[in-house]
Amino acid sequence: MSETFHAFNPSTGAALAAEHPIVSWPELDAMAAASMDAAAALADTDPARIAAFLRACADRLDADRSRIAATAHEETALPLEPRLAQVEFDRMLGQLRQAADAAGDVGPTSWRCPMIDEATNIRSDRGPLGGAVFSIGPNNFPLAFHGVSGGDFAAAIAAGNPVIAKGHPLHPSTGRLLADAVTAAIVDAGLHPATVQYVAHCEPEDGLRLIADPRIAAVAFTGSRAAGLAIKAAADASGTIASLEMSSLNPVFALPGALADPASLAEAWAGSVTLGAGQFCTKPGVLVAIGAGADAFIDAACRRFEAAAPGILLARDGIASLAIGIAAVESSGAVRRCGGHAVEPGFRFEPTLLTVDGATFLDRFEDLATELFGPAGLVVKATDLDEALTIARRLEGQLTATICTGSGDDAGWNALASVLRSRCGRLLENKMPTGVAVVPSMVHGGPYPATGHPGFTAVGVPASIARFTQARCWDGVAPSRLPDWLV
Amino acid sequence: MSETFHAFNPSTGAALAAEHPIVSWPELDAMAAASMDAAAALADTDPARIAAFLRACADRLDADRSRIAATAHEETALPLEPRLAQVEFDRMLGQLRQAADAAGDVGPTSWRCPMIDEATNIRSDRGPLGGAVFSIGPNNFPLAFHGVSGGDFAAAIAAGNPVIAKGHPLHPSTGRLLADAVTAAIVDAGLHPATVQYVAHCEPEDGLRLIADPRIAAVAFTGSRAAGLAIKAAADASGTIASLEMSSLNPVFALPGALADPASLAEAWAGSVTLGAGQFCTKPGVLVAIGAGADAFIDAACRRFEAAAPGILLARDGIASLAIGIAAVESSGAVRRCGGHAVEPGFRFEPTLLTVDGATFLDRFEDLATELFGPAGLVVKATDLDEALTIARRLEGQLTATICTGSGDDAGWNALASVLRSRCGRLLENKMPTGVAVVPSMVHGGPYPATGHPGFTAVGVPASIARFTQARCWDGVAPSRLPDWLV
Repeated sequence: MSETFHAFNPSTGAALAAEHPIVSWPELDAMAAASMDAAAALADTDPARIAAFLRACADRLDADRSRIAATAHEETALPLEPRLAQVEFDRMLGQLRQAADAAGDVGPTSWRCPMIDEATNIRSDRGPLGGAVFSIGPNNFPLAFHGVSGGDFAAAIAAGNPVIAKGHPLHPSTGRLLADAVTAAIVDAGLHPATVQYVAHCEPEDGLRLIADPRIAAVAFTGSRAAGLAIKAAADASGTIASLEMSSLNPVFALPGALADPASLAEAWAGSVTLGAGQFCTKPGVLVAIGAGADAFIDAACRRFEAAAPGILLARDGIASLAIGIAAVESSGAVRRCGGHAVEPGFRFEPTLLTVDGATFLDRFEDLATELFGPAGLVVKATDLDEALTIARRLEGQLTATICTGSGDDAGWNALASVLRSRCGRLLENKMPTGVAVVPSMVHGGPYPATGHPGFTAVGVPASIARFTQARCWDGVAPSRLPDWLV
Repeated sequence: MSETFHAFNPSTGAALAAEHPIVSWPELDAMAAASMDAAAALADTDPARIAAFLRACADRLDADRSRIAATAHEETALPLEPRLAQVEFDRMLGQLRQAADAAGDVGPTSWRCPMIDEATNIRSDRGPLGGAVFSIGPNNFPLAFHGVSGGDFAAAIAAGNPVIAKGHPLHPSTGRLLADAVTAAIVDAGLHPATVQYVAHCEPEDGLRLIADPRIAAVAFTGSRAAGLAIKAAADASGTIASLEMSSLNPVFALPGALADPASLAEAWAGSVTLGAGQFCTKPGVLVAIGAGADAFIDAACRRFEAAAPGILLARDGIASLAIGIAAVESSGAVRRCGGHAVEPGFRFEPTLLTVDGATFLDRFEDLATELFGPAGLVVKATDLDEALTIARRLEGQLTATICTGSGDDAGWNALASVLRSRCGRLLENKMPTGVAVVPSMVHGGPYPATGHPGFTAVGVPASIARFTQARCWDGVAPSRLPDWLV
């Protein structure tokens, strides 16, 4: 008899009625076996049919939009309109359709990178991995990053890999609806039934065992640093490819010229910190305010944080984690200016602003430069550019880094950008990082430990597809045996 | 006082006079610090100057060709003409000049992948890693894969990364001459002096410590599986990028049609197995002969192996390793048909042919499917295609896999290729894998454990350069702050 679990409504704190299965190892083992058959079938499948499957996924999901969005809202308390029902839903559909276009593209600029050297009779391209991609989505984007319908799923399928998708235990009914739509689309497109297999949840040790299994070619994960590092260790030990998005401080450096208009900067930053209750991967959790303008900025930011509504966290555990994190930052020398408390009903938490001076921040760097998952931000008052540069040099790899500039800040930009450029995937100027445009030029990635490899991006087609491919050379192979795009 | 070491002449077994330093940790630590300065300097360097440096490397090396080749010959016993003085030397120079062209290329099809989205004001490209690449070359290609002058070096520099290069203890005087030429080229091009730093040798634990150091962005390694896995573990634990080429059986599957001409196939295979004394990464160490033609092929191969001169191994240790490996294969059920002995003078070893039936090979797979580094090959007699397919499915990731076909082998090709395609980087038909053409369509890579990542190639510009780059996004950044190729 399988174990089961259920979710909660974060807005009320009430348990939800639906029971969902915790999938056992024998079931995962059978899925891994089936995925090998699906991998072989996909390798012989016309790319146009894989493209048709991804389009059918988008169509099937769209047809069930209102029910899926309402379910996601109930399980996550993220705003129904426009966030879930429009913005994130359209993003999910757009990603699937972009991936469909890429899947069907066999041209010279496609992710397949076809190369033909007539003189040597040596050709190359990129192709699927020969095993399943285990796709594990996060808690904070129940649709667009979901393991069974999100960007990693779409990229893995576009490259011709079967997917074993794990839902997130905080929104299992959403995952069930998404998986049902995708399963129906498999039938629509006439693909092997194990092209996508869905797991509502499994024990962590079984998940790690699956990652280390040779039938699993790659794992895709978005989530916490602790879980990500455990997954990375399992993948590394077995040679499984890992595409990991772990955590990021997403530092903002505000130069003196930008601080000359404290109200505008405070509005932008506070809005970005509290968006989605501060549970974005790209939340700009630390702002380094450089020079004498820091105090006026902090005052303005305080007013914004105090005026914002409490954010609803995704999980009850999140309240305790955030409170503990805030207390740890305070005990390391930061001062809480506002917020700091959970609020009834449900999993609400006050927007929370903390400040610290640059010397203390550097002195207690490991304790203070930590992600607070929720509507909380830390302003670091740096005496001058030199202190800000010292901070920048201490930073680990980040998804994003932002430099806010104004009049007279060219030298400051140059100095900071030269340090930050190789420490982040996306460098922004005068723009908050929480908006991640789904365009080919986007990089949603960055150096370790923000991700596992700085060469990859989880958003942006076709680069996101390349993560799940291998480089293949065909040396002296008769033309009749080559893929169409190499003849 | 530093420790020192010296090399041997493998042809005579005599110790060579020159003493070389074993570099200590404090020296490595200072090199890591200097490489951070060089990384910052390179980030501000005109790509044309990096290109000029790589060309100057080629010119400086070419000017010292006869002395370098003669020294490499003395230390490795690889043939002076044409192998070292012509073929491998020209390959080294060609790689450096191809990398130079790529380094200076800022166009839309270059490794920089410049992308401009005017509508969103989001741009992206690929750029250097922000730290040093620790480049560790192998014993078997003292020039073209050398840490300080080979393909990994050229690719890392082309991407704008400083290099800390480690020589190989079997050919230290060669390494010293290569490093001297490269050091002179740094001055020619006016680059930061720590752009390339050379280490003759270091203790393994100091090398692993360097790999785990945050100032080292990547490690590039070609060599044994044991050393490669130790390096991978150190790199994985610290988030250092690793480009690893470990070992490979490079299996050949000979279908019945190909076995109809046993003499030709035997000549090609025996020549490939014994080339360079069987010390190529792509040596086809295992040949699976399918069907009744196997015996005639084995007889023909035996004659070729017996007629070939003993191969000179690179190291005295290699004799013992090879003898132990052969004995282990014999004790697991293989039969030695010829060879098997070391020969005086120097580090010579007889070309050695072993055979085994398919059932025994499958039964003792882990013991028999192992790399024998040297002039030794194993023929597996597979009863039929089904048994060959079972063998193919058991294989780990490989650099290459070869299918030899003749009349009537189309179905055999299709069945084998569908299994082998995702298990190797390069799939060949009727061609032995030891020739690795330096062309853009080459893939010298493959799934784990042949390498660390199936998406990368160590040979072929520009893909080999991409290994040592990060994906960078510029979001909302003012045009005056962008690289030229993004404006």
